[in-house]
Amino acid sequence: MRTHVQNTPNDPEFAISEDMWTRLGGPSPASFADDEAGFRAGMAEAAFLVTSTAALSKYLPCDAPHLKMIFCTSAGLDRLAPFDWLPPGVALVNNSGVHGARAGEYAAMALLMLAGKMPQMIAAQQAGRWEKHYGSVLAGRRIAVIGTGDLGAAAGRMARAFGMRSVGVRTQAVPHPDFDETVAVADLDAVLPEVEFLFLAAPLTPRTQGMIDRRRLGLLPEGAFVINYGRGALIDQDALCDMLDSGRLGGAVLDVFVPEPIPAGHRLWTTRNLVITPHVAADDPKTYAADSVKLFLVNLAAFEAGKAMPNLFDIVRGY
Amino acid sequence: MRTHVQNTPNDPEFAISEDMWTRLGGPSPASFADDEAGFRAGMAEAAFLVTSTAALSKYLPCDAPHLKMIFCTSAGLDRLAPFDWLPPGVALVNNSGVHGARAGEYAAMALLMLAGKMPQMIAAQQAGRWEKHYGSVLAGRRIAVIGTGDLGAAAGRMARAFGMRSVGVRTQAVPHPDFDETVAVADLDAVLPEVEFLFLAAPLTPRTQGMIDRRRLGLLPEGAFVINYGRGALIDQDALCDMLDSGRLGGAVLDVFVPEPIPAGHRLWTTRNLVITPHVAADDPKTYAADSVKLFLVNLAAFEAGKAMPNLFDIVRGY
Repeated sequence: MRTHVQNTPNDPEFAISEDMWTRLGGPSPASFADDEAGFRAGMAEAAFLVTSTAALSKYLPCDAPHLKMIFCTSAGLDRLAPFDWLPPGVALVNNSGVHGARAGEYAAMALLMLAGKMPQMIAAQQAGRWEKHYGSVLAGRRIAVIGTGDLGAAAGRMARAFGMRSVGVRTQAVPHPDFDETVAVADLDAVLPEVEFLFLAAPLTPRTQGMIDRRRLGLLPEGAFVINYGRGALIDQDALCDMLDSGRLGGAVLDVFVPEPIPAGHRLWTTRNLVITPHVAADDPKTYAADSVKLFLVNLAAFEAGKAMPNLFDIVRGY
Repeated sequence: MRTHVQNTPNDPEFAISEDMWTRLGGPSPASFADDEAGFRAGMAEAAFLVTSTAALSKYLPCDAPHLKMIFCTSAGLDRLAPFDWLPPGVALVNNSGVHGARAGEYAAMALLMLAGKMPQMIAAQQAGRWEKHYGSVLAGRRIAVIGTGDLGAAAGRMARAFGMRSVGVRTQAVPHPDFDETVAVADLDAVLPEVEFLFLAAPLTPRTQGMIDRRRLGLLPEGAFVINYGRGALIDQDALCDMLDSGRLGGAVLDVFVPEPIPAGHRLWTTRNLVITPHVAADDPKTYAADSVKLFLVNLAAFEAGKAMPNLFDIVRGY
């Protein structure tokens, strides 16, 4: 059975090359492309598609008579929603698990930058002003992480490593090893007044869209901090900018936005005490493509053995 | 025997108040001041002086006929050098140990910001440009920390926590629990070509002044990173700025400079890929003054028992 690998055009740092594929034991025959003609030709034959969501979303719907499984080299597949293009019987699989190591370091960086008053110091540096801002350690401070998947758990482990008191917010209040406690998302309002750091790491689904609205941001204590490496649409971005500009919130580190790329002249670029990273938090070019291939092989082995694939994506749940 | 506490004027976040002193069991009688008249009056009577170096350096030399010990609420006492003003028989004591927790978090933040391409992203944000810069994890990457005291050890522990391979550079190559290996400062040249992160955490003494000169910076690999929370004069600052501006070095996070404050219009403010923090890396206002008082009490107890004081400063060594 043939595999087709569809890379994003002009994205060499994250491309799966034929060399890499062979070296890692990817099955043959396999075809490789990063353009539409290559995609159409590959899909005419392929049983397995390995693709970035960026590439796939350009070419949908597609004709793929032999297709059995799509493995996406992303964890969040919201840009492929709604999933009405997915042929019945074709399994959709993500690469959740590939992002944890890099995301954890981004999480730690973001927490330390906010606790360390880095947004204020960046602004002072830009103005050429020597202006003391003293930070305090993270130990003992309280964080809520919304979403307890690969990305959320990575944040939870870092929060614990720095001695923070953490609560994981998830669909149901099932205990999670990387959090001191967990609460159900239905009880979020009770948590927000007690957390100094609100960390968003949830997938974007119809139920999570806009969940951190203006009212909920208003429940956070004065001077609280917000981090988001889930999806921009989880939060009311304008309300967040308002509360940063007014000083009601103490700072934010955001990796995801509405829209992306952020257009020139957008208010986000100049919002007070906001650190912007351009949707790079969880992607380490040194390991991303190879780790994705390895994870594909794990899922392929399960598929071929007739077992449950660990990364099977649930289109109803949305993750 | 009387203690005099001399605080820095206009520095309430770090002041030792009479309330704090009493609450922590500071000995009585004690006097408190933050001005010169109070200092002179206090010194006429005091056996013990607890003071910031900023305050003390303003008023030297001083008449202190009963003085037995000066406890400085700083670790680096270089601004009091040369120590010819120190009356014979008066012990000089620092507060090394108070800075480790906060300094460790700053160290982790600085390492993560550099590995995460934060300087590049800060510049892109300032320009209002959506420009992808991908970072890679710290694990497996090599760091040299110069100075293995309280500050250097804090950096070493963080480097280890993130899986880096560390070498501590110290006077002699005595093993240190917080570093994978140690080398003597005399062998520094052999280490530099192999480290991606050069971390300065040494005291400023006649022997360390200018130790990281242009030649030694040139030994670092292309794209290497520099962090300094020791003292600005450890490094050839102009050479560092040159190599950052040219792209020869990949980025730097600096907390200490020559001079401080950095004057308006100084080239440091606009050096490429440089993050400036205004000498705040190791000072946590939530704990600094109280921890300093506690450490004074530990040293005072040793002094009164006729034992070696753990924080006795060696004016010949310079730390």
